[in-house]
Amino acid sequence: MEIAAGIDFGGTSAKVGLVDKSGRILAKDSLLLNSRESFEGIVEPVAQCLRGLLAGSSAQQGLAAIGIGTPGFIDKNEGVLIGGCENIPALQRRSVQKYLGNAFGVPAFAENDATSAAAGELAFGAGRKFSSFVLITLGTAIGGGLVLGGRVYRGYRGFAGEIGHLCVNPDGLWCNCGSRGCFEQYASGTAMARVYGEKLRKRGREPEAELTPKIIVEKAREGDELARDTIEETGRWIAQAFGSLLNVLDLEACIVGGGVSEAGDILLSPIRRHLPDHCWPQICQGVQIVAAELRNDAGILGAAAQAFERLEA
Amino acid sequence: MEIAAGIDFGGTSAKVGLVDKSGRILAKDSLLLNSRESFEGIVEPVAQCLRGLLAGSSAQQGLAAIGIGTPGFIDKNEGVLIGGCENIPALQRRSVQKYLGNAFGVPAFAENDATSAAAGELAFGAGRKFSSFVLITLGTAIGGGLVLGGRVYRGYRGFAGEIGHLCVNPDGLWCNCGSRGCFEQYASGTAMARVYGEKLRKRGREPEAELTPKIIVEKAREGDELARDTIEETGRWIAQAFGSLLNVLDLEACIVGGGVSEAGDILLSPIRRHLPDHCWPQICQGVQIVAAELRNDAGILGAAAQAFERLEA
Repeated sequence: MEIAAGIDFGGTSAKVGLVDKSGRILAKDSLLLNSRESFEGIVEPVAQCLRGLLAGSSAQQGLAAIGIGTPGFIDKNEGVLIGGCENIPALQRRSVQKYLGNAFGVPAFAENDATSAAAGELAFGAGRKFSSFVLITLGTAIGGGLVLGGRVYRGYRGFAGEIGHLCVNPDGLWCNCGSRGCFEQYASGTAMARVYGEKLRKRGREPEAELTPKIIVEKAREGDELARDTIEETGRWIAQAFGSLLNVLDLEACIVGGGVSEAGDILLSPIRRHLPDHCWPQICQGVQIVAAELRNDAGILGAAAQAFERLEA
Repeated sequence: MEIAAGIDFGGTSAKVGLVDKSGRILAKDSLLLNSRESFEGIVEPVAQCLRGLLAGSSAQQGLAAIGIGTPGFIDKNEGVLIGGCENIPALQRRSVQKYLGNAFGVPAFAENDATSAAAGELAFGAGRKFSSFVLITLGTAIGGGLVLGGRVYRGYRGFAGEIGHLCVNPDGLWCNCGSRGCFEQYASGTAMARVYGEKLRKRGREPEAELTPKIIVEKAREGDELARDTIEETGRWIAQAFGSLLNVLDLEACIVGGGVSEAGDILLSPIRRHLPDHCWPQICQGVQIVAAELRNDAGILGAAAQAFERLEA
């Protein structure tokens, strides 16, 4: 049985799993990352963790490839992380792919985490039904991945899919990337919390300290109209971004993932309702707006899926 | 010698040519279209014109395919024009591809004219150096075509490339497509003439009756500051659109075509200068902003190029 290791680097932890071609996770573990460590100090414990999983499973002989997902821009040939991963600076300018490939003697493939997530949805999740779609991951920021013509689309150097940095408002908010009006500033979890907080303050109320999208969604479900308005506005911005992407790329589906997407229909409904205002009728006709299916293990499954895909390419 | 026919349907005329694989036009002709004619009344004269070119050339035996470019949305499988071609209503819901393919007994391929233009630049023009690029055609409207991974990208149904309908301003001008703030409303030739006219009127001056982008460019070259400002603003909007597209698609180049692009560096310079304000530094680094190379015969060459490409697919 052929298996791939899926490794998902977050800002504070790494998740490691062994995944078969049907998307079953045979074993998994996670470890805390010390972001002030050296490159080897971060990557070697991850390798140790993977060795442990392999030793404890019957799958060792079948390890076909290692897939790695990290934030940032990863050169698609060398696997070098060339930027955009400020939370784990030691990974920058280095190749996790090369290190782990050498350590385990199998092909290894590093990929932007949102592009990995799109590969995961294509292989094991909501993307199985579609040959072309965009996935956005709504969290602290907005990540994005594209599947075009049945394949993960990586772009010229491997940097494609920065949907969070589509300009949706030319005179709008400044973004961490240095540009103005990025989609991420209007529809991420961070943006939802900011918008809801502003709505409260304008009405003389103070938002609770830890205002998460999850709390806002719960409030909306309980009938809080400001929370509903916040989600409605978020949905309108997402519809605008999807409309632009559909006009440019003529896709079959738009998939909404990341923590915020657990809101489900309360978020998907406004996206679907507003979409025709932002897209050619011929192009948005029949396009499906759906939630991602992979949840807690999306990182592991996505990393493994992109490794399987690239192994076959 | 293998040749393709390239047929370019405009609103008032059709251009027909015979093109070899090196992009040489062996013979060409054009005919006026009566847009009130029936489907057959429009397409049969085009077929006659092609028969005439074939009869007059030594290439008849070598006709390998017919490429057709028209405005609008063309289903990539059946070649049916399903909308967006209001200037020649008789073509809608019909397949020029099928008609001409049957008439000449060779494969025929209909394609959106801007996507055809991208195929033309890829095969014979400024795109030869690049494996991934966007082409925009600036004219009365803005058309667009994409080349990704060395191939023309058509999208799920064949409708991709509507770059003119990227939303660049959510509270902006209404567009013919029914949405607001489309790129086309800010950077087409029509938009340039509107902006320059507004600038004059706000200063108590009346624009000349026929204000074309060509005239505006000439005025800018002669030192007219309002004309220069108009082109500067156009360039900024184009840079914003290109920045968004690069963030999403990670391309090697952006090619500016269509009549307005004959402005050359006076338009390309502001695009290049503004681009870094609208794009991740890692992503816009090294991206080339260049003018299309195919000019008067771009329609014929593009239509033939996409036919050659699809014949080989």
